[in-house]
Amino acid sequence: MTTQLIECVPNFSEGRRKDVIEAIVDSFRGKRGLYLLDYRADEDHNRLVISLVGEPAPIQESLIEATKTALKHIDMNLHHGGHPRIGAVDVIPFTPLKGITMKECVDLAHSFGECYFKNTGIPVYFYEDAAKMPARKKLEVVRKGQYEVLKDEAKNNPDRYPDIGGPGLHPTAGGTAVGTRKLLVAFNVNLKTEDVEIAKKIANTVRASSGGFCHVKGIGLALEERGITQVSMNLVDYEANSLYRVLETIRMEAKRWGVSVLETEIYGMIPAKALIDSAAYYLQIADFDPSQVLELRLLELMGKNGE
Amino acid sequence: MTTQLIECVPNFSEGRRKDVIEAIVDSFRGKRGLYLLDYRADEDHNRLVISLVGEPAPIQESLIEATKTALKHIDMNLHHGGHPRIGAVDVIPFTPLKGITMKECVDLAHSFGECYFKNTGIPVYFYEDAAKMPARKKLEVVRKGQYEVLKDEAKNNPDRYPDIGGPGLHPTAGGTAVGTRKLLVAFNVNLKTEDVEIAKKIANTVRASSGGFCHVKGIGLALEERGITQVSMNLVDYEANSLYRVLETIRMEAKRWGVSVLETEIYGMIPAKALIDSAAYYLQIADFDPSQVLELRLLELMGKNGE
Repeated sequence: MTTQLIECVPNFSEGRRKDVIEAIVDSFRGKRGLYLLDYRADEDHNRLVISLVGEPAPIQESLIEATKTALKHIDMNLHHGGHPRIGAVDVIPFTPLKGITMKECVDLAHSFGECYFKNTGIPVYFYEDAAKMPARKKLEVVRKGQYEVLKDEAKNNPDRYPDIGGPGLHPTAGGTAVGTRKLLVAFNVNLKTEDVEIAKKIANTVRASSGGFCHVKGIGLALEERGITQVSMNLVDYEANSLYRVLETIRMEAKRWGVSVLETEIYGMIPAKALIDSAAYYLQIADFDPSQVLELRLLELMGKNGE
Repeated sequence: MTTQLIECVPNFSEGRRKDVIEAIVDSFRGKRGLYLLDYRADEDHNRLVISLVGEPAPIQESLIEATKTALKHIDMNLHHGGHPRIGAVDVIPFTPLKGITMKECVDLAHSFGECYFKNTGIPVYFYEDAAKMPARKKLEVVRKGQYEVLKDEAKNNPDRYPDIGGPGLHPTAGGTAVGTRKLLVAFNVNLKTEDVEIAKKIANTVRASSGGFCHVKGIGLALEERGITQVSMNLVDYEANSLYRVLETIRMEAKRWGVSVLETEIYGMIPAKALIDSAAYYLQIADFDPSQVLELRLLELMGKNGE
């Protein structure tokens, strides 16, 4: 039997107290069937972002364990930070990786939400593919007004009641947004120009919100210290909107202004398939099968052996 | 502790009798720390090629087990086939993959050679990086005249004595070449021309033997059924001679003849790094770290957990 693998990137509202951060992260260490890929605490955001990959069961158990730790140490009424948030455990997004469909991942998010509330007492909002109310597909709608506004509205405005638990939020831990989404690739294209207007115009041509590629979010910004500009993007579906296609479109648009691409950046994790797809395009590889990639084949076999 | 991983592609002189093939392959099935990636039996070559990845100990133990099976069923005095060979187990090449250097892999080949002879009675020739005599770096030197010539010379000509065991070969199983080499990438570039002379001229410009890239072997040939031609290559060091560099050189040379690249092919396994390196070139990714690739990071962590 093939092991199911998911990715999960829970965000906790604590980026300053090292002991609390380590106590939370400890819940994800040394667990069978669970791999802690990375964690980053940001002091300005006062937020902890943890990258996990593993089987659904150990991921869910560890999330509840970590949340119990967060409950002990984080009081949202005292929390300040630069990043929008509605709770001590702000978001828990699940992403299907292997042996599990998006639909199954949505079911998993829903049953996890029930179990999470039962064990922690924290109400749950479902977002993105797991949303039960269409408007809540967008995380920004769920988080509107943040904890400070939501703690009242979740009690008094039926439109903002949690999907599970409530009316009202947890008195210290607030609420948690539980969602399901595809893997996100953070892809920046740096331009050889100081003129931020050009970067903004180009961002406009490629992003969904102004009519570009349907699964690209992006802005144009200046990297002032370096005297260059950047089209900073999130590819929310790297299979539909490949890296090479987005890059070559930006390159083509940049020509209009006599500007060239200096370099690109990939921030954080990227699935192998996203890079292999671009390699196959540029190298013109016919009939390429990802299981020809030694490491991917190995991972496939390791899953089958149930390790 | 990080697990050591090696690749091993043993070649057995049996490509026709299904029961013998399966009996040999069975030695590599269901072993902890060992993954059977692929195996292919070729009737014309009368040869079985097995791709393994795993930890050194289970790979070596299984190789000796498989060799004992081969000893029972294969008599080189009765063997015929299109591929050069010196024994029932013709070659055993080891390739370092992770947590092991080439130097350590050479030591491993040498100690395996001793153990192999002790357990099977089959004399060993070391080749490529594991060669003890410089001339034997080249497998074709070790295999000169094949089994039929070598069985006499290994007894009577000190220049051709085995490195371990001998003088002389095993009476039915012959000898085995044990070596150490880098991963090999089989990369073909198909050209939009029927003129095989152009493919040959281009092959000349990129391959080492005629002054091209130091780690490229290649020939030009016609794919007659398709009315096209091909530069068929082995990249014996894909880190020194990247796929993109070889392809773009071929593209550049083809322009001289007004010919363009139709497509390329990767035959068999390829390490992720080879494709990622080309993706990073074409996508102009600055400061890319392969551990940003989700699957590679996962594999790294799985190794560390000792699974």
